[in-house]
Amino acid sequence: MDKPIGIFDSGLGGLTVLKEVRNVLPFENIVYFGDTKRVPYGSKSKEDIIKYTFEAIDFLISKNVKVIVIACNTATAISLDLAQKKYDIPIIGVIKSGSKSVVSKTKNKVVGVIGTTATINSNSYVENIKELDKSIKVFQKACPLFVPIVEEGFSKTDVAKETAKIYLKDLINKDIDTLVLGCTHYPLLKDSIKYVVGEKINLVDPAKETSITLRDVLIKKNILNKKSKNGICEYFVSDNPEKFSLIAKDLLGIEDIKVFG
Amino acid sequence: MDKPIGIFDSGLGGLTVLKEVRNVLPFENIVYFGDTKRVPYGSKSKEDIIKYTFEAIDFLISKNVKVIVIACNTATAISLDLAQKKYDIPIIGVIKSGSKSVVSKTKNKVVGVIGTTATINSNSYVENIKELDKSIKVFQKACPLFVPIVEEGFSKTDVAKETAKIYLKDLINKDIDTLVLGCTHYPLLKDSIKYVVGEKINLVDPAKETSITLRDVLIKKNILNKKSKNGICEYFVSDNPEKFSLIAKDLLGIEDIKVFG
Repeated sequence: MDKPIGIFDSGLGGLTVLKEVRNVLPFENIVYFGDTKRVPYGSKSKEDIIKYTFEAIDFLISKNVKVIVIACNTATAISLDLAQKKYDIPIIGVIKSGSKSVVSKTKNKVVGVIGTTATINSNSYVENIKELDKSIKVFQKACPLFVPIVEEGFSKTDVAKETAKIYLKDLINKDIDTLVLGCTHYPLLKDSIKYVVGEKINLVDPAKETSITLRDVLIKKNILNKKSKNGICEYFVSDNPEKFSLIAKDLLGIEDIKVFG
Repeated sequence: MDKPIGIFDSGLGGLTVLKEVRNVLPFENIVYFGDTKRVPYGSKSKEDIIKYTFEAIDFLISKNVKVIVIACNTATAISLDLAQKKYDIPIIGVIKSGSKSVVSKTKNKVVGVIGTTATINSNSYVENIKELDKSIKVFQKACPLFVPIVEEGFSKTDVAKETAKIYLKDLINKDIDTLVLGCTHYPLLKDSIKYVVGEKINLVDPAKETSITLRDVLIKKNILNKKSKNGICEYFVSDNPEKFSLIAKDLLGIEDIKVFG
């Protein structure tokens, strides 16, 4: 079935998920929607986050998608359950997959989770991880400045490093061996985070596990694209397509990207 | 007249204006409203900024204020004219006063303006400065990350300095002798900005001139508080009163601050 996969994020962070999806499912067509006008979601109220998520889903459905990936931890934490109840189309989040990943990777069973204020306050990661393994200790830290830093294109500057130093100090002291990047923007800060936490702490990006979950859903529902031609990606944003295009090109390493405002 | 002055900002930046108002008008009572739930305004649409400004004004009017200071450059740039048309109560912005200040201070007639994306795109400072002196050259730069940095309490960290380095590089190269802090949050970053631009560039904070404009309006309308007892300040925010209280105490150097959520 050559109907596209819909991927939605509050901004450009979801591109890290899109990248993994393209690796795992190269023949699928994709429609990406980044709500760049209202980013960051992480400091907004529950009501607003739910409203924005539903609007994004409606938009993707209007683009005739066959499945939706909420590639935003905040939107997943606050609205995935509600969205799955409201819509008939299959909808996948990123937190279950991320939790699975961290449980398989930790050795000392002490892990850290970083995310937006809304994601951390929701306790979603803690609950999902504990459901898989009660004995794991989970320490959390909200990092509200990380998303604006990424959206501003400052991921590779000393601004990112200095911010990471402040946010991650306490978690490092807790002796965690694994750290979940609980926001799809954060893999873009990987170098700065790695620089601060060092080589001993494993960074978990839920994107990879999410694409595998997505593939399994497509197989189970029998809606895989059976063609063997590389899929097409279309990008839509609610604000500032030029900036999005610039960062997307750099991130995805492609030249021919068309972004619709 | 002991009815209070209403001061409104998108977050805690307006406290820099409140501080000046208290210096100039110590006997006045003040009601402060910080829209901390929806900060930053600077990256929002015009429609949203106007809506939020009107809601804030309605709230302050419900607190029985006699005059309103829009202590937010973004809200001033986008909605002051509309607000002055809609409401009978006197309403004062910060941009006219800031422009007056910069015109009186520049010697080489080359000035810089920094502000939020919305303030810079509105061209308000350029127009107001040119109206006072056509021969002045104005260079602008939007600094969208500065507000989140202040709201996060990172004003005095290396994060602020590194961000200032990136944003201000081009303006310094333009040989400006005066720089307008065109956002009420920015005076809180004064040390970091000073560190980057050096001693030769004059920093202009519109807050002082705004309080003098305010005093003149109170005199002209004959609504000065004639009592000689220090005024009382009440603080209201739309989100996270604890964080606001912490930063406000530090900024205003007072202990007894009550913030209503």
